[in-house]
Amino acid sequence: MTGMQMPSGVHALVRRTHEERVLRALQENGAMSRGEIARVVGLSRTTLSEITGHLLQRGAIVVVDTDASKREGSGRPAARLALDPASAQFMGVDFGHRRVHVVVADASHEVMASGAARYDDTTPWQERTGLALGLVERLTAEADVHFGALQGIGIGVPGPYPAPEGSAPSRATPVGTVLRPAPEGVDVAFAERFDAPVIVDNNTRLAALAEAITGADSVADLVYVRLSDGVGGGLVVGGHLVTGSSGLAGELGHVTVEPAGRPCRCGKRGCLETVASVPAILAACWEFGLPLENLRDLADAVSRAHPVVDRVLREAAAALGRVVGAATMTLNPAKVVIGGEITQLAPVIVEQVAATLAADLFPTASAGPAVEAARLSDDDGAIGALAAVFHNSPLLARYPETTDVTAGPGTDDPTIEGAVHVRP
Amino acid sequence: MTGMQMPSGVHALVRRTHEERVLRALQENGAMSRGEIARVVGLSRTTLSEITGHLLQRGAIVVVDTDASKREGSGRPAARLALDPASAQFMGVDFGHRRVHVVVADASHEVMASGAARYDDTTPWQERTGLALGLVERLTAEADVHFGALQGIGIGVPGPYPAPEGSAPSRATPVGTVLRPAPEGVDVAFAERFDAPVIVDNNTRLAALAEAITGADSVADLVYVRLSDGVGGGLVVGGHLVTGSSGLAGELGHVTVEPAGRPCRCGKRGCLETVASVPAILAACWEFGLPLENLRDLADAVSRAHPVVDRVLREAAAALGRVVGAATMTLNPAKVVIGGEITQLAPVIVEQVAATLAADLFPTASAGPAVEAARLSDDDGAIGALAAVFHNSPLLARYPETTDVTAGPGTDDPTIEGAVHVRP
Repeated sequence: MTGMQMPSGVHALVRRTHEERVLRALQENGAMSRGEIARVVGLSRTTLSEITGHLLQRGAIVVVDTDASKREGSGRPAARLALDPASAQFMGVDFGHRRVHVVVADASHEVMASGAARYDDTTPWQERTGLALGLVERLTAEADVHFGALQGIGIGVPGPYPAPEGSAPSRATPVGTVLRPAPEGVDVAFAERFDAPVIVDNNTRLAALAEAITGADSVADLVYVRLSDGVGGGLVVGGHLVTGSSGLAGELGHVTVEPAGRPCRCGKRGCLETVASVPAILAACWEFGLPLENLRDLADAVSRAHPVVDRVLREAAAALGRVVGAATMTLNPAKVVIGGEITQLAPVIVEQVAATLAADLFPTASAGPAVEAARLSDDDGAIGALAAVFHNSPLLARYPETTDVTAGPGTDDPTIEGAVHVRP
Repeated sequence: MTGMQMPSGVHALVRRTHEERVLRALQENGAMSRGEIARVVGLSRTTLSEITGHLLQRGAIVVVDTDASKREGSGRPAARLALDPASAQFMGVDFGHRRVHVVVADASHEVMASGAARYDDTTPWQERTGLALGLVERLTAEADVHFGALQGIGIGVPGPYPAPEGSAPSRATPVGTVLRPAPEGVDVAFAERFDAPVIVDNNTRLAALAEAITGADSVADLVYVRLSDGVGGGLVVGGHLVTGSSGLAGELGHVTVEPAGRPCRCGKRGCLETVASVPAILAACWEFGLPLENLRDLADAVSRAHPVVDRVLREAAAALGRVVGAATMTLNPAKVVIGGEITQLAPVIVEQVAATLAADLFPTASAGPAVEAARLSDDDGAIGALAAVFHNSPLLARYPETTDVTAGPGTDDPTIEGAVHVRP
């Protein structure tokens, strides 16, 4: 590939490295055209064609379709490549307060099976875990899911997810992934049941990752806020989820917006959550004489353009905009995403956040971040968990080995994996 | 080393990888004991001793001293190892508004030469660059500095330092480092003069990195704010400097603290900078009847415990504390560092920031970040630039090659470097 004289072992290693970058890009992004792959991995089209040729020949990747349906311009549709769908499976699990969602996808990111099971919000973790495992059993029976191929499991759990001081890493900890103990050993239960590495994180944070990396306009820097019973958030910085020094990064709901405001369940006063959570918004409507019981009532009032609901939503969104504005001055994200069912019902929220944000930004940041409603719904938490696995699983260990005859001694030995993937 | 049968090429590659991790740790941290190295690189003491034995034998590293002077407990003093000081040199350059500082350090992090040159704040960049290069000439004559050994140059420039849209990367860009065009080609001038890779960044941001990684209590997550003519900031998240989507991350000085406040030079009103910069603090003292011209007057007033200066400083620091509190809720840093000469003169600033921050934090973040005055002064900017180079230079390419007889074909070929250091 270069004009240099290289021993065959080196040559093979360089190619293996290129192959791994291509496989990793496909694992993280799902199906991509050669042009997209070349851009993401930083290889020339010529080198890339050589690499994908070998991978296709070995069956490590396959042509899944063309990009004809996504294309806006003219020109010949490009083939889209993906990891061999049958080569690996990934599971995402999202524990909410009252239900668990499970989704299983193949290596090309196609969802093979998904389902949900309900429980009370008082149900203990051990029982929730049992319900989730039972749900997986049912899904297995319905779809062509064979868990021997599971390369990783992502699990989202509610609420702030700090790492308790001095807690030991889970038995399921693969080298190089950030894992912390899940509530009541849910991580260990899944790892033992499926013999696969498990990643656990706050489900709002996982949603932030999913919003950042899914879709054609994926971004490396994103601020995510979700309005629901509380106000949660998640940050993606430089393409990575931010957890913070003790697992509390992204808790935008507890930034103070009114120093002398209402008491918050966290013990402080005037947190963003006391003005912008769904219960806070409903309560404010009552105060102004508009009795709303729930989100359906609120949606009705919005559709009738009731002045009270408009005013309350604008005030809540302005407070949210100020908090997001400070986070934007701090992190300079490319995108701000507001999630939660209420955001879908009341477009004024995103509008007002964008307006407040624009007023609060450093004027030289001429473009400013895009402000958008979340693409994924609250019920898509398992997709977020899946995104974390696609991005973090210890990857490709089960891929067809390089069998190229130019390989020097040892370069196709799987034990080399730990040596080659240096993560300082 | 393991009980497994491994081809000799693999064995050598594994060891080379371990060696590189040890060399990288020493490059980033300077002299360390074997115990510290083992902890940082995650190798057992036995494996590490084997690796350092080989490196010492080859002269790649040397014993520089023992840790006797730093030790508090009992026990035999441990030898401290470092890269061979003569093997490489690194340069840090800090362009302020009115002077440039240059510092040159060897591979063991010992400063070999340093100096400064003054200019007007209207001096164009081309002339500043010429003054800096002239300063380097003089330093070369005075110390044993031989620039053939220069592995990297870090350059700090006054901020903000955004990447203009569509600007091409510098000719000096080494693969894998984040570079953006410097004002008027200062990066290219240094790269061409010294034939070494150049990293340029906002000098406040570089100071944040230096605060995070220097000292025994280095942290991976840090929020840094500097109070001077303006208010700047820098963030370290997960051990990396955060630049943001367009180079504006860390601009905490332009977070709004008083929506109807004074006009800011940025075009908004009531930015943190309008209440917590040095000029804003001096102006507030005048308003309350205490005419202070400069920081020396302010230091006098502080030493006399003048009630006006105490009140003004507490109010400014409380505003700073609210902004830092929001940044802390967002990023959950282990440490908050407040820099700028005024912080040294008026300890009440750090006290008040810590108090406001504690009141503003999520109560479950029981420990909260440490709040500290900066260790490095504004004149230490070149140290920050140096820190960036130690952390980012393309590293070790000129190190004595592995000559171990067990090496398989090609594993000691320098062209392998690009293949082994996979950074997804």
